[in-house]
Amino acid sequence: MRQNLNCIIASTSTIHGLGYLEYLKPTLKKFFKEKKKLVFIPFARPGGITHDAYTDKVREELDDIFDTIKGLHEYENPEQALKDADAIFTGGGNTFLLVKTLHDKNLMTTLKEEILKGKAYLGTSAGSNICGINMQTTNDMPIVYPSSFETMGILKFNINAHYLDPNPHSTHKGETRETRLKEFQAQNNINVIGLREGSYIKAEGEKLTLEGGLKARIFEPGKEAYEIESGENLDFL
Amino acid sequence: MRQNLNCIIASTSTIHGLGYLEYLKPTLKKFFKEKKKLVFIPFARPGGITHDAYTDKVREELDDIFDTIKGLHEYENPEQALKDADAIFTGGGNTFLLVKTLHDKNLMTTLKEEILKGKAYLGTSAGSNICGINMQTTNDMPIVYPSSFETMGILKFNINAHYLDPNPHSTHKGETRETRLKEFQAQNNINVIGLREGSYIKAEGEKLTLEGGLKARIFEPGKEAYEIESGENLDFL
Repeated sequence: MRQNLNCIIASTSTIHGLGYLEYLKPTLKKFFKEKKKLVFIPFARPGGITHDAYTDKVREELDDIFDTIKGLHEYENPEQALKDADAIFTGGGNTFLLVKTLHDKNLMTTLKEEILKGKAYLGTSAGSNICGINMQTTNDMPIVYPSSFETMGILKFNINAHYLDPNPHSTHKGETRETRLKEFQAQNNINVIGLREGSYIKAEGEKLTLEGGLKARIFEPGKEAYEIESGENLDFL
Repeated sequence: MRQNLNCIIASTSTIHGLGYLEYLKPTLKKFFKEKKKLVFIPFARPGGITHDAYTDKVREELDDIFDTIKGLHEYENPEQALKDADAIFTGGGNTFLLVKTLHDKNLMTTLKEEILKGKAYLGTSAGSNICGINMQTTNDMPIVYPSSFETMGILKFNINAHYLDPNPHSTHKGETRETRLKEFQAQNNINVIGLREGSYIKAEGEKLTLEGGLKARIFEPGKEAYEIESGENLDFL
């Protein structure tokens, strides 16, 4: 399944102190080199932003890389648009809304097929969650009810984006991220990678690598969680 | 619908520095006075604890109030058990797991009917979320897929338990609770009360009151969020 992947699967679009996609920009310039036509999937709508406004934001940041950038909502035939694109970017926001919209429009399978054929794909946050087996390790609020929690399964494990370490000084009794992921694994036999903000997975052909200079945290059912270093291969997951 | 309510709907079972249910104990002694038979609903399974172990934990804390405490999972006919109980307590944990289990066992409606008839009900966290219109303002991870997100609708608004104010010093780019609730309201025309840890709603007959000594935060679609004081009436919601 993995042989033709060409993806950047990032924890977040934005890190503290920098603008939208700024920390990734040098990487994206290389990654998307010679790609002319980007289709952007705006369905996750962070903060309820419109599809148009979200696409404009991406156009502003990436217009020096691509000749054309269009939102998937602008096409009469979105399935064909995914097939015709040189590159696809799914932005972050609410994962429930993204997954519901992709299922309702019957686009999850087409998107998966295009990525498996080797189309250049960038996902950030919710757009990365959908690369996993299911969306059940999202941090988002269930603001809509998707017809299914299943996602593309491009990766044979799940992503927890914006992974956050427990705060030792917190007096809050809500559960830590690690506890939530353990609860997930009590119900699901699926490995999870906790990607801290600034980390991303680079998928090239058959090879998956952790990139971004930060450690990531690996959760395997029935095992103690452990850390891996940036630059390490993730094919074992 | 509200006329016979007799409920305590709490943000959390436990506050920082105190044991399980400890901060609520004096309130519960009065509230459950002369009730002999408690049925406990352990389905939310915090941290993946077993139904038996969770029920034992409640038995330990509340055995000076009741003659008998049994877990709903111990009954051959759980519907009848809810009807026969003097009082019902639904504990916290994972709201997706709680709601899925109640729907799968066809118990959501029976529970609602018993509460509307005036049966004494205690909810903490996930057990409070189900008093709202739907579970879509939970903070929990979607570790299982419920057949529906609808809950009892005992209250004509939704609860956000463990409500957390934004941390002005945070460098994390994940969304604040308030942003998530605004995203919920972009999709759903439902009021929400953010209950901080230590707050609870007391429902007596037709009257709803905020209790616990802390302010709560009210979210109405299309309005700025605002605070209300402990002791205030919540019937306007």
